[in-house]
Amino acid sequence: MSTRTLVRGGLVITAAEETHADVLVEEGRVVALAAHGSSAAEAWTADRVLDATGKYVIPGGVDAHTHMELPFGGTFASDDFETGTRAAAWGGTTTIVDFAVQTVGHTLREGLDAWHAKADGKCAIDYGFHMILSDVDDSSLKEMDLLIEEGVTSFKLFMAYPGVFYSDDGQILRAMQRSSLNGGLIMMHAENGIAIDVLVEQALARGETDPRYHGEVRKVLLEAEATHRAIQLARVAGAPLYVVHVSAEEAVAELAAARDKGLPVFGETCPQYLFLSTDNLAEPGFEGAKYVCSTPLRPREHQAALWRGLRTNDLQVVSTDHCPFCFRGQKELGRGDFSKIPNGLPGVENRMDLLHQAVVDGHISRRRWIEIACATPARMFGLYPKKGTIAPGTDADLVIYDPKATQTLSAETHHMNVDYSAYEGKTVTGRVETVLSRGEVVIDRRTFTGRAGHGVYTPRSTCQYLN
Amino acid sequence: MSTRTLVRGGLVITAAEETHADVLVEEGRVVALAAHGSSAAEAWTADRVLDATGKYVIPGGVDAHTHMELPFGGTFASDDFETGTRAAAWGGTTTIVDFAVQTVGHTLREGLDAWHAKADGKCAIDYGFHMILSDVDDSSLKEMDLLIEEGVTSFKLFMAYPGVFYSDDGQILRAMQRSSLNGGLIMMHAENGIAIDVLVEQALARGETDPRYHGEVRKVLLEAEATHRAIQLARVAGAPLYVVHVSAEEAVAELAAARDKGLPVFGETCPQYLFLSTDNLAEPGFEGAKYVCSTPLRPREHQAALWRGLRTNDLQVVSTDHCPFCFRGQKELGRGDFSKIPNGLPGVENRMDLLHQAVVDGHISRRRWIEIACATPARMFGLYPKKGTIAPGTDADLVIYDPKATQTLSAETHHMNVDYSAYEGKTVTGRVETVLSRGEVVIDRRTFTGRAGHGVYTPRSTCQYLN
Amino acid sequence: MSTRTLVRGGLVITAAEETHADVLVEEGRVVALAAHGSSAAEAWTADRVLDATGKYVIPGGVDAHTHMELPFGGTFASDDFETGTRAAAWGGTTTIVDFAVQTVGHTLREGLDAWHAKADGKCAIDYGFHMILSDVDDSSLKEMDLLIEEGVTSFKLFMAYPGVFYSDDGQILRAMQRSSLNGGLIMMHAENGIAIDVLVEQALARGETDPRYHGEVRKVLLEAEATHRAIQLARVAGAPLYVVHVSAEEAVAELAAARDKGLPVFGETCPQYLFLSTDNLAEPGFEGAKYVCSTPLRPREHQAALWRGLRTNDLQVVSTDHCPFCFRGQKELGRGDFSKIPNGLPGVENRMDLLHQAVVDGHISRRRWIEIACATPARMFGLYPKKGTIAPGTDADLVIYDPKATQTLSAETHHMNVDYSAYEGKTVTGRVETVLSRGEVVIDRRTFTGRAGHGVYTPRSTCQYLN
Amino acid sequence: MSTRTLVRGGLVITAAEETHADVLVEEGRVVALAAHGSSAAEAWTADRVLDATGKYVIPGGVDAHTHMELPFGGTFASDDFETGTRAAAWGGTTTIVDFAVQTVGHTLREGLDAWHAKADGKCAIDYGFHMILSDVDDSSLKEMDLLIEEGVTSFKLFMAYPGVFYSDDGQILRAMQRSSLNGGLIMMHAENGIAIDVLVEQALARGETDPRYHGEVRKVLLEAEATHRAIQLARVAGAPLYVVHVSAEEAVAELAAARDKGLPVFGETCPQYLFLSTDNLAEPGFEGAKYVCSTPLRPREHQAALWRGLRTNDLQVVSTDHCPFCFRGQKELGRGDFSKIPNGLPGVENRMDLLHQAVVDGHISRRRWIEIACATPARMFGLYPKKGTIAPGTDADLVIYDPKATQTLSAETHHMNVDYSAYEGKTVTGRVETVLSRGEVVIDRRTFTGRAGHGVYTPRSTCQYLN
Repeated sequence: MSTRTLVRGGLVITAAEETHADVLVEEGRVVALAAHGSSAAEAWTADRVLDATGKYVIPGGVDAHTHMELPFGGTFASDDFETGTRAAAWGGTTTIVDFAVQTVGHTLREGLDAWHAKADGKCAIDYGFHMILSDVDDSSLKEMDLLIEEGVTSFKLFMAYPGVFYSDDGQILRAMQRSSLNGGLIMMHAENGIAIDVLVEQALARGETDPRYHGEVRKVLLEAEATHRAIQLARVAGAPLYVVHVSAEEAVAELAAARDKGLPVFGETCPQYLFLSTDNLAEPGFEGAKYVCSTPLRPREHQAALWRGLRTNDLQVVSTDHCPFCFRGQKELGRGDFSKIPNGLPGVENRMDLLHQAVVDGHISRRRWIEIACATPARMFGLYPKKGTIAPGTDADLVIYDPKATQTLSAETHHMNVDYSAYEGKTVTGRVETVLSRGEVVIDRRTFTGRAGHGVYTPRSTCQYLN
Repeated sequence: MSTRTLVRGGLVITAAEETHADVLVEEGRVVALAAHGSSAAEAWTADRVLDATGKYVIPGGVDAHTHMELPFGGTFASDDFETGTRAAAWGGTTTIVDFAVQTVGHTLREGLDAWHAKADGKCAIDYGFHMILSDVDDSSLKEMDLLIEEGVTSFKLFMAYPGVFYSDDGQILRAMQRSSLNGGLIMMHAENGIAIDVLVEQALARGETDPRYHGEVRKVLLEAEATHRAIQLARVAGAPLYVVHVSAEEAVAELAAARDKGLPVFGETCPQYLFLSTDNLAEPGFEGAKYVCSTPLRPREHQAALWRGLRTNDLQVVSTDHCPFCFRGQKELGRGDFSKIPNGLPGVENRMDLLHQAVVDGHISRRRWIEIACATPARMFGLYPKKGTIAPGTDADLVIYDPKATQTLSAETHHMNVDYSAYEGKTVTGRVETVLSRGEVVIDRRTFTGRAGHGVYTPRSTCQYLN
Repeated sequence: MSTRTLVRGGLVITAAEETHADVLVEEGRVVALAAHGSSAAEAWTADRVLDATGKYVIPGGVDAHTHMELPFGGTFASDDFETGTRAAAWGGTTTIVDFAVQTVGHTLREGLDAWHAKADGKCAIDYGFHMILSDVDDSSLKEMDLLIEEGVTSFKLFMAYPGVFYSDDGQILRAMQRSSLNGGLIMMHAENGIAIDVLVEQALARGETDPRYHGEVRKVLLEAEATHRAIQLARVAGAPLYVVHVSAEEAVAELAAARDKGLPVFGETCPQYLFLSTDNLAEPGFEGAKYVCSTPLRPREHQAALWRGLRTNDLQVVSTDHCPFCFRGQKELGRGDFSKIPNGLPGVENRMDLLHQAVVDGHISRRRWIEIACATPARMFGLYPKKGTIAPGTDADLVIYDPKATQTLSAETHHMNVDYSAYEGKTVTGRVETVLSRGEVVIDRRTFTGRAGHGVYTPRSTCQYLN
Repeated sequence: MSTRTLVRGGLVITAAEETHADVLVEEGRVVALAAHGSSAAEAWTADRVLDATGKYVIPGGVDAHTHMELPFGGTFASDDFETGTRAAAWGGTTTIVDFAVQTVGHTLREGLDAWHAKADGKCAIDYGFHMILSDVDDSSLKEMDLLIEEGVTSFKLFMAYPGVFYSDDGQILRAMQRSSLNGGLIMMHAENGIAIDVLVEQALARGETDPRYHGEVRKVLLEAEATHRAIQLARVAGAPLYVVHVSAEEAVAELAAARDKGLPVFGETCPQYLFLSTDNLAEPGFEGAKYVCSTPLRPREHQAALWRGLRTNDLQVVSTDHCPFCFRGQKELGRGDFSKIPNGLPGVENRMDLLHQAVVDGHISRRRWIEIACATPARMFGLYPKKGTIAPGTDADLVIYDPKATQTLSAETHHMNVDYSAYEGKTVTGRVETVLSRGEVVIDRRTFTGRAGHGVYTPRSTCQYLN
């Protein structure tokens, strides 16, 4: 027999509404909401009653961009699906969409199977997969159709990383054409990697080997250029486009111009671009290596453009691009050569809190917080309304969030498997208190009560922003 | 003792969600939603059960731009608050925000009192007021603050109609400065009326007296110009701006450019600009007079830009600018001189249906339909969450909407007090079946069961899109 | 019998060419150019030979914007046509186009006659007139046609100065419509004076009376707004437009956008906007009054946009807006009330030198110097090829310019009738050595050898940039 | 002893001036100009007097984009330097800048030597060379410096034609970086060839083999994309950029946006884009093959944007991209497969006449005709003032042009070595009468009096639009 859970007394916040309501959960789903103190609410009984008085009740976060155990630069991202999803739960995120990787010369199927094997039985929360296409050809294009049927409906391409993930414009065009037919969504890493590699080589030749040069060679104009190119190719193909980890003001401008034309073009940014900058990359010693990711951190003045983009909806999603590498032994691979520093930052645990801090700081509203962190990623990647909101019928992925508590972010206290925090020492207001995943309490007043294997693979429909 | 009403079996559509849920109403408010067939839903009993199976349950429409009984050009708009609000109810609209008018030389108070007198005890549905400022000076600026306290939080100014409603740029700037302090929202009729009057005079002197010349003299560039000017003045004042009845592609472009900068600038369009065009103004005989309104209907190709603006959110609201004048005796005042045709079209009854037709036609999604017609106008004008959505705690302004029924729009069958329909003979898919206003059934399966006086004056908070 | 003059050995610079050539002058006109040392050149004999070896030979400057003896704010510009044109000659300018003023309630004819009377027999160099329209009505519109026949082909309107020179948008539209028929060119002072007057009154009410507040109330956005509005009105009228004294980056952007569309829209800036800034307006004591002009000086960062506009040809002309008022007794009228400071700066003597300094500084090329200061103003206002270039057939208005000499600008040494220099103490490279006006030497190796009355009224054809 | 030639009685038109002047020529150069009938002119005697009364005297045309004898698609352009330069002379063009080609795996030197060998002793008029870089590497980058010293100062790269001339973005960036140091000018064929090749393959697979599909696969958006990308790469490199054969409105818009920012970006178009369209490509049978070139002809509506770009100076040069292939035996290689049609059109003989027709048609002024066809290409490619204008000291490359004569363009009468005319049957107003090349009469009243070998290699300085 099923458990009935009642979340009483909270302010339910979704992307659309702020409602003083009790939430009734049965068999892992939200079944009803009723105004506090209404006769309907008063009539409810439950096996378990969670008191949310004075707290927010929000949908669990949807992090649409993670890389658990990603092989990169001769090493692997330090969080596996077990540690990574547990940390996600701690941070109020109840769904991740991770990237399965096709290796050059192998099929999508092989890559997807490998990622299923990594995740199966390990996850504390639900998960889905995007697929990275490293080898676009007739065969992999056909496989796209099959994967969509299995709920892998989005495909990432790289204009960067020649020789690794890179696709040329012809491959990109062909994948986009296919997606225009099969409903898939192309996700683009938009940097002109061919040009960047020239600048990398030149910088190293000049002896510019420190982490900060990583930020200098990956130029704003080359992100903007690739963003523009991806948009034009998508227009030629008649396909939608989702640009990942937008960091430069000029790239936001390209997205805004496309969207003003009514084109189905979307943009994601990440907390690191909103809260960190080239100042971090330039930290003394080799400390800057902690902040090496691509697209790179930008000068501080780009942050205002990103916040504005989030307000004007020229950017729609904030994901983490969670891809942690320990400073010791991993980031250190790049001492003396910034191009050998594994690219990536930890963040899956910090996203909901950092974005709540943005509410406190006045950058965005509470509802926009939920929209960019929960509802829109769910819709963008075909998980709605199962995930991303609170309404009768949705999965009971709920977070009781204390908007008044403060906490200090630190590697000492975080739960990600990485030896540093990109936000070490930063104090934020707001903290996850209790988390439900499909009705199960996985974090109970800041104790982890979940388990590896509770989280299940969640097939996705196609993007819900297209007709 | 209060009545309990239960709306069963429908698809509840709000701006944000589509939920298969039963809706429980008590004391005029929605108190709970529960998934169809859930134990919570099954447990509910009610005095009255409305079956919405196979239907939509949507929030009652919010029409933020009506002119009941407006004096204009020596006559009065032909709907008074009784006939107009009854027609609104028939069309699924449960709230109107009408324009009280300050007359030159009189106080805001006098104007507002006059409009209260017109509306009091007459309305079938709830209503609020904006205030038209015809005489911006120190005294009327001070009165703005008082009106905001009474729930009249938005103020319309005209860059058109010199000698009648017109304010010069200094008056506009001063009103905007005041609104930047008191939280009021300036609504702007953005047409360069000074220039237009020159063109009117010249056209008449050339013998161009037919209705179609109304469209020719009120040029697209002069709407775009005034829109740009209003935006710049608002920037100087540090104030938000809401531009009413946007009709020209070039004006949408001005709004889009402002919004890309993150400015608090908003735009409204109306069904007539989306569905009608200068082709109607050019109908033979004097038929074109039926379509005379300002801003004027535009060439058909502007429609695509308006639809796009609604999709990109560069336009946020669709109101009617309902201001009917009978063809006989009223529109006819302008035979032989288009400038004497009273400006305005009937539409309060048709808006929800026309916009549903836009859903059928693929211009917008179902949720966007509710957003532009209910939720956003409610938020824009401080009525949210009382009006504009369906959630525990909101007013039970509900419409059971049949998305499959078809109807033919016609003056024969409509309920507005006007002798023609701007959409005569147009068949649309979708029809209002039953309407609740604060829990009272005012339309019951297409019978009017409401009454004059049920509707109450509803004070409004300030715009909810500002911090 | 006519005098033959030969200018030997110089580098002849025009807007188009740099030619090592001797220039032969007969009867006040250039008749031939021949390569230095060619048999043709060697064969020439002359009554007077001027040695230009190591020097530039350039066309005399054409200053298309001066206000000699302008009545303003209860006083008169301190240079009359005698002192002003003599100073112009000292500065290498051989033609001015001054503004005759229509007074409200009077005809254009009366205004023009008055200005002819002021200038007749006084001028050291040639001169033409624009006409300021202060009172656009049927009668003055008809007079426009007549004036064009007399060689007064350009008409200035003001969007600023309500109650003085101000025209409303209807008057502007009508004047533009007329100019689209008669070939006249509308020159626009583009500032939203109605809005500015509100800000002036508010600033004074707050006790902000110092000169620097002049710069704060005349906001950049209100210059950009008026520029945009003027362009839109010109589009409605189908007329060309020349915007005077552009000072703000945002106004340049409006011009650039219009020109990208291929519209016949032109822009002028002045040396004060290129070399001075709000820093000058904020000079301590009442010193800032020396820099009060409208449009006002802008923050220093606008200068880069103006230089760029001159390079991209979004700005075409540099004139002076020469309108000097002595600090003592004139500027001082505004002590305690910046709005009473007469608007205007001296500059007719400094323009050619300051722009040569811009060549030295690398802002513009030598040929562009001549283009913006001589050739384009001549073409713009129908004086070409008589004025503005050096070729067989042109007036022999020639300057022998020493590009190596340095000089320090100062009221001590300048020849304008004003007790201060806006550039006091500034050292520039380059100096006028000898000046010919229609073949007569009026400055001879830095001695004035001209005379009042040598300069003659020069009727102008219509703008030569239109078809 | 040198010959003295006198051109009497014509209207001398340059980019800057229209002067009624006699032109005196000695030793191959213009030495003097004097007003008709002046004592200076009257005094002149000459060995040869050419009467230009009623005619224009214009600088000989400078065609900065020709491909004599170009190997392409397994064949060679049908004009060699002898036939091609003779035809150029017939058409009033007295200088060409042809493209020497580096072959992959070979040095620039080898390519340049080969082209010198082709041209040496063959040319009727003067000529220079650009260099096509097909193989950008350290070695060829170093050679760029050497070639600049020899007067080959511009280098063409291709974003199209993968496997033939194509350079990737890294090679482009490196070449641009080099040019930013050595003063070279990068000329870009801006089409995304990688994407186009995908579309070509798909079109052929669908059986779309006719010439008109050439226009469909080479999409406007892919020209605009490449133009944008080239601009961004040039910004990264800090280098100037010259985009060849711009044909699409959207590409012009990219150039205009760059130029508004003050970037040193230049654009060229060709007569075929101004006068022909996809209508020609779609001519029945295989006739469309005659019009196959890349960038391709565009729909007719793009022509207006090109004309506007020429007027606004967003396009600066009109060259021919002369690259003729006979219909029979050459164009026919592509029967059944449009991708095998050799790309190119004949035009070197028609350019001056077609652009004069544009003067007649009102698209451009007479002076702009000379500017885009003579003066600007000369300055752009370092030939000024030797070529491109008429002034004391310039080469006596002069054309006596009859603006009243009419002619009908036809393969029957043209002098290019190709069996069709792209303008067959088109009647134009204006005709070359007499042509001088360095003082030698090479066309004498429509008789060819020149000779192979008169024309000499003309080394060029670097671009004269840069500092």
